[in-house]
Amino acid sequence: MVFMDDNFLLTNETARVLYHQYAAEMPIIDYHCHIPAEEIAKDIRFSSITDLWLGADHYKWRAMRLNGVSEELITGNGDPYERFAAFAATLERAIGNPLYHWSHLELQRYFDIKEPLTSESARRIYDQCNQVLSDPAMSARGIIRRSNVRLLCTTDDPADDLRWHRLIAMDSTFPVKVLPAFRPDRALAIEKKDFASYIRGELGRAVNRTISLYSDLRDVLRDRIKFFADNGCKTADHSLPYIMYAPCTDEQAEVIFRKALNSEPVDLYEQLQFKTNLLSFLAAEYAKAGWVMQLHYGVKRDNNTKLFLQSGANNGCDCIDDYTPASELADFLNSLCKIDALPKTILYSLNPTDNAAIGTVIGCFADSSCAGKIQQGSAWWFNDNKKGMEEQMTSLANLGVLGNFVGMLTDSRSFLSYTRHEYFRRILCNLIGTWVTNGEYPCDLTALGGLVSDISFNNCNRYFDFGLTV
Amino acid sequence: MVFMDDNFLLTNETARVLYHQYAAEMPIIDYHCHIPAEEIAKDIRFSSITDLWLGADHYKWRAMRLNGVSEELITGNGDPYERFAAFAATLERAIGNPLYHWSHLELQRYFDIKEPLTSESARRIYDQCNQVLSDPAMSARGIIRRSNVRLLCTTDDPADDLRWHRLIAMDSTFPVKVLPAFRPDRALAIEKKDFASYIRGELGRAVNRTISLYSDLRDVLRDRIKFFADNGCKTADHSLPYIMYAPCTDEQAEVIFRKALNSEPVDLYEQLQFKTNLLSFLAAEYAKAGWVMQLHYGVKRDNNTKLFLQSGANNGCDCIDDYTPASELADFLNSLCKIDALPKTILYSLNPTDNAAIGTVIGCFADSSCAGKIQQGSAWWFNDNKKGMEEQMTSLANLGVLGNFVGMLTDSRSFLSYTRHEYFRRILCNLIGTWVTNGEYPCDLTALGGLVSDISFNNCNRYFDFGLTV
Amino acid sequence: MVFMDDNFLLTNETARVLYHQYAAEMPIIDYHCHIPAEEIAKDIRFSSITDLWLGADHYKWRAMRLNGVSEELITGNGDPYERFAAFAATLERAIGNPLYHWSHLELQRYFDIKEPLTSESARRIYDQCNQVLSDPAMSARGIIRRSNVRLLCTTDDPADDLRWHRLIAMDSTFPVKVLPAFRPDRALAIEKKDFASYIRGELGRAVNRTISLYSDLRDVLRDRIKFFADNGCKTADHSLPYIMYAPCTDEQAEVIFRKALNSEPVDLYEQLQFKTNLLSFLAAEYAKAGWVMQLHYGVKRDNNTKLFLQSGANNGCDCIDDYTPASELADFLNSLCKIDALPKTILYSLNPTDNAAIGTVIGCFADSSCAGKIQQGSAWWFNDNKKGMEEQMTSLANLGVLGNFVGMLTDSRSFLSYTRHEYFRRILCNLIGTWVTNGEYPCDLTALGGLVSDISFNNCNRYFDFGLTV
Repeated sequence: MVFMDDNFLLTNETARVLYHQYAAEMPIIDYHCHIPAEEIAKDIRFSSITDLWLGADHYKWRAMRLNGVSEELITGNGDPYERFAAFAATLERAIGNPLYHWSHLELQRYFDIKEPLTSESARRIYDQCNQVLSDPAMSARGIIRRSNVRLLCTTDDPADDLRWHRLIAMDSTFPVKVLPAFRPDRALAIEKKDFASYIRGELGRAVNRTISLYSDLRDVLRDRIKFFADNGCKTADHSLPYIMYAPCTDEQAEVIFRKALNSEPVDLYEQLQFKTNLLSFLAAEYAKAGWVMQLHYGVKRDNNTKLFLQSGANNGCDCIDDYTPASELADFLNSLCKIDALPKTILYSLNPTDNAAIGTVIGCFADSSCAGKIQQGSAWWFNDNKKGMEEQMTSLANLGVLGNFVGMLTDSRSFLSYTRHEYFRRILCNLIGTWVTNGEYPCDLTALGGLVSDISFNNCNRYFDFGLTV
Repeated sequence: MVFMDDNFLLTNETARVLYHQYAAEMPIIDYHCHIPAEEIAKDIRFSSITDLWLGADHYKWRAMRLNGVSEELITGNGDPYERFAAFAATLERAIGNPLYHWSHLELQRYFDIKEPLTSESARRIYDQCNQVLSDPAMSARGIIRRSNVRLLCTTDDPADDLRWHRLIAMDSTFPVKVLPAFRPDRALAIEKKDFASYIRGELGRAVNRTISLYSDLRDVLRDRIKFFADNGCKTADHSLPYIMYAPCTDEQAEVIFRKALNSEPVDLYEQLQFKTNLLSFLAAEYAKAGWVMQLHYGVKRDNNTKLFLQSGANNGCDCIDDYTPASELADFLNSLCKIDALPKTILYSLNPTDNAAIGTVIGCFADSSCAGKIQQGSAWWFNDNKKGMEEQMTSLANLGVLGNFVGMLTDSRSFLSYTRHEYFRRILCNLIGTWVTNGEYPCDLTALGGLVSDISFNNCNRYFDFGLTV
Repeated sequence: MVFMDDNFLLTNETARVLYHQYAAEMPIIDYHCHIPAEEIAKDIRFSSITDLWLGADHYKWRAMRLNGVSEELITGNGDPYERFAAFAATLERAIGNPLYHWSHLELQRYFDIKEPLTSESARRIYDQCNQVLSDPAMSARGIIRRSNVRLLCTTDDPADDLRWHRLIAMDSTFPVKVLPAFRPDRALAIEKKDFASYIRGELGRAVNRTISLYSDLRDVLRDRIKFFADNGCKTADHSLPYIMYAPCTDEQAEVIFRKALNSEPVDLYEQLQFKTNLLSFLAAEYAKAGWVMQLHYGVKRDNNTKLFLQSGANNGCDCIDDYTPASELADFLNSLCKIDALPKTILYSLNPTDNAAIGTVIGCFADSSCAGKIQQGSAWWFNDNKKGMEEQMTSLANLGVLGNFVGMLTDSRSFLSYTRHEYFRRILCNLIGTWVTNGEYPCDLTALGGLVSDISFNNCNRYFDFGLTV
């Protein structure tokens, strides 16, 4: 009955022991996030809790809009305290929303604030947060270190020169590994207006080379994979509407590519063919490099044109796209598997009704090269809440081997989001503890503690080959 | 362990306090139902519990068929007691079905019967119900008043002259507001055989005007919206297979419309274009009028041709249609939002797997014109049960701001269905109470009671602009 | 807290009474399984627990692959104990997987082993199991008898001569009925390369007749239905990607069939037409015979070409296919219902998100010829776990009349799988007991015990017309 105390979400004794004695102490690997490496390199500071909380968090923006707050106070130039107060008033009504828990976990862990955030407490809490933020220890790096993060992966375009990653790597005073992740979305986005200019411009310039042919593009991307790998990269990441399978020959892909470079129309099927071909090529390269391929899909982005024109992408106007055929996903993976070109792969669909289909697909392509070679990613984005995580893990447990799950990542733009690892671990321990309490698994704390530690840290460390020691 | 007592569905102390001290006393707004205004105007009486329960309730018919009862006793002219007894025998086996709870809530609240309905108790209960129904206080209006209903919205064709609504409004002895709702399904149903005859006949006659052009149709519908608004209407309602987005120009729509009026074939894509165009026009009119647009979809109707020929539509032979693409829904709403023509909108899909997709779509179009401008409707029809409501509210809470939810409606043809508001409120209070008990939200009864009262009554009153005072 | 004791999965007193006093004692009807009749006729014995557990169980193979075990130890010729130990090591990590419970139920019920299977206990358990298996009472028939099985249905091609079934039927020392089930998948699989050779070869030879025309095929299948019925068959079974509805005339089907026999290309739509036509014909024949038609769909098979070439079909590389349109399913059933040719039908989708759609479809075609004429099958294959069963039964209860459910089947190739009936019954009793404990149904143990006994045995016996007495 106590609000968010030490035993938050831990409803049984086994869960409490597992969390406090095993999970809590494990360090964090955040293998997919959207923090700019530059902000870590520069060790930025935050002018206020409004800056930190409302500067770039589309979850909070969306909730505020749903509460009827004016855009001025959401993404606009409203007074910092007024914006914070508008968020506080929103949060009070957002019972059951993960933001409620994330925000209060952040207040507790980073600002030593235990009272609930409400319209009444907003001023007090605002002032106390800003007081804490005035401490230099609350810089970007300071927050990362006190969060017990050992390694994080950013999200980077192939054209990126990774200068900030190299700067961080060379700084021996900062012990946290900050690795790049390869995200060639723009090289696949043949339907986008800026495709040709990206290929010819940013990407070509990054390697000082003219890209005229599809074979050039592949060469360049292969080189960039090498360059990323040389800078410690262990994983690539793709954002796709769905995993398509429209195979074509390299020659056909070449024709489609040249059309696009010449700004000639490329129809939907040709787009799918090009993407299938290029993604297959990249997957094979990832497999050679020993990388993990992360596939994020099931999203329809930028749905509110009016707000998009006003505040751009990632402003909280994305939704689930429920066209995510399991058959094409399976065919795509099979096409790679057949030629021994299937890398370790993590599948994330934004559509939670895909849980079971994904859980059955991953079992089709497992092999002895790696325990849990194909993974279902942790409950993602809109599903990153208690129910979403319980459903994803229950599904994974029913359909696979939960003990090999690589666990949590934040996918976040915020430096305070590491508490989501705590949130995940509490939910994991509670789920397992509940099964044990129901007599569904023996109460062998050593075995259970091992599973929990593995899912919290060890599996991820092994799977990505990060080489950390606890 | 006690069957359906005062604390039915209230599994924790917080839930009990919230229900008994806050939710129970709130009056009812039933903003979408299928009761004919005529029956209220005439204040009809009921000849027996069979008449009241089995006269028009396709939920009960369906259950009886599933129990192997003959059609004679379901929709036929069987003996009233035999029909009742057949339902009682069905109910006994329908453990876990919401009918079980609805029926017993109705027996408890309106007939003061506490014992379970079984084959054994059927005769006793039948007689007692009929005894109670012989009291003039159990007329249509009597039931509505004792149910603490303050306002209800019926469902009406644009051609309706609303005479019964006006009669009721003029009767100062009946304090309940009975408002029309605008349901122009037949004007959109260009694929139906009777489309041309409806447009030229019923609709044209209602306004004493010849409708030859699509522009005529739009003028007429605009006039009817005005007429409905003058009679207190605050909302329109549409039943669609799915929310389509196949935009076309008004000129193209004109061509398609004239084909249909001339009984020339209109292909599927043209149908979708016509519907997209007309629904967009109507939505913009609703926005101007300040109305709420309700969109019900995900249904495949009249699936049993044999029974349809025998007993017509709404006979319990409808099912979920799982083709309900989120992408078209988002594109349709965006097309309206872009031109500032998006009205307040409530989305109901019959497919419960759409919960998450809808929850993410509504967040894309929220703005400061109204808290909770786009809503996900309460668990509808086949989902109107404990699990369906818990899932809809949990999804809404996870993805949005539950505190702004406009809550329950009956969608019913029955005068006893107001107990479903009680059912909903118990489930709501239990869900919130469970979260509080788990430490997921502070136990601040004033704040919680406010949320519960809002979702029970205040939000709906504000959202539709009904102007009631508690 | 005790691991899998007598009250395993029974979390409340009502559940315990219902299970121990009603469900546990009911005999088993396993109306759909994949055990070869030959193995029963020959009363085979098992060389080791590895033989019994890993000989043909794709669930276990899949789990082992997911744990990174080499194929040599999965489907290969690895040392029996090493293979067993590799499975034990997998099981330890597969917390939450139904295999965990199935395996331990089997160890408890057949081998009197109570301790958990782990890497540590593997050797002890391996030896004890093999010791038990050396007892002649642990033959195929012995296991069936001690499992309290009264009747089982195998799965048989129309070309099968049913010799083994007849041998078993003639053996008065074995009191269990072993009935064939008619599975004409190969006669419908017009897209497969071996279609023509099957029709002309195996099927034609079985009836000593040349099949040149589609009308020949129908005649032959009609004859085989008669032959199967004469051998006690009560049910047909189909495996389909989804229930399609692409009606065509018999003449069109004839043209398509002849193309296929002549190895001319048959496009996708023609395939669907042929299947719709032939399945409709067969359904009408089943209706005449009083048979139950079982439709299994929502599967994409043999997804891993590499492993398929190595170890063939049913090797654990199948997945859910989420293209399973409810509209075609409803149209197909309606087309049969319209002409009074709809047999008793059980629908199983591998896609668990179809639960609600199926639950609403079955209510459209119920009638008084049989209580529960159209059924949703028990949670199937990947859904055959605690959560899957709870969701299927809760959905069924919400949308229909749970009391008429025909209950569990194993769909298994293993002789030890009868414990899955126990698993199902425990979950059933717990679900019902939980409702009663929450006051959602009266605590009338006679009524509840009746429901539980019906769902465990009586409904199935009545529905299939097996004519057994308890």
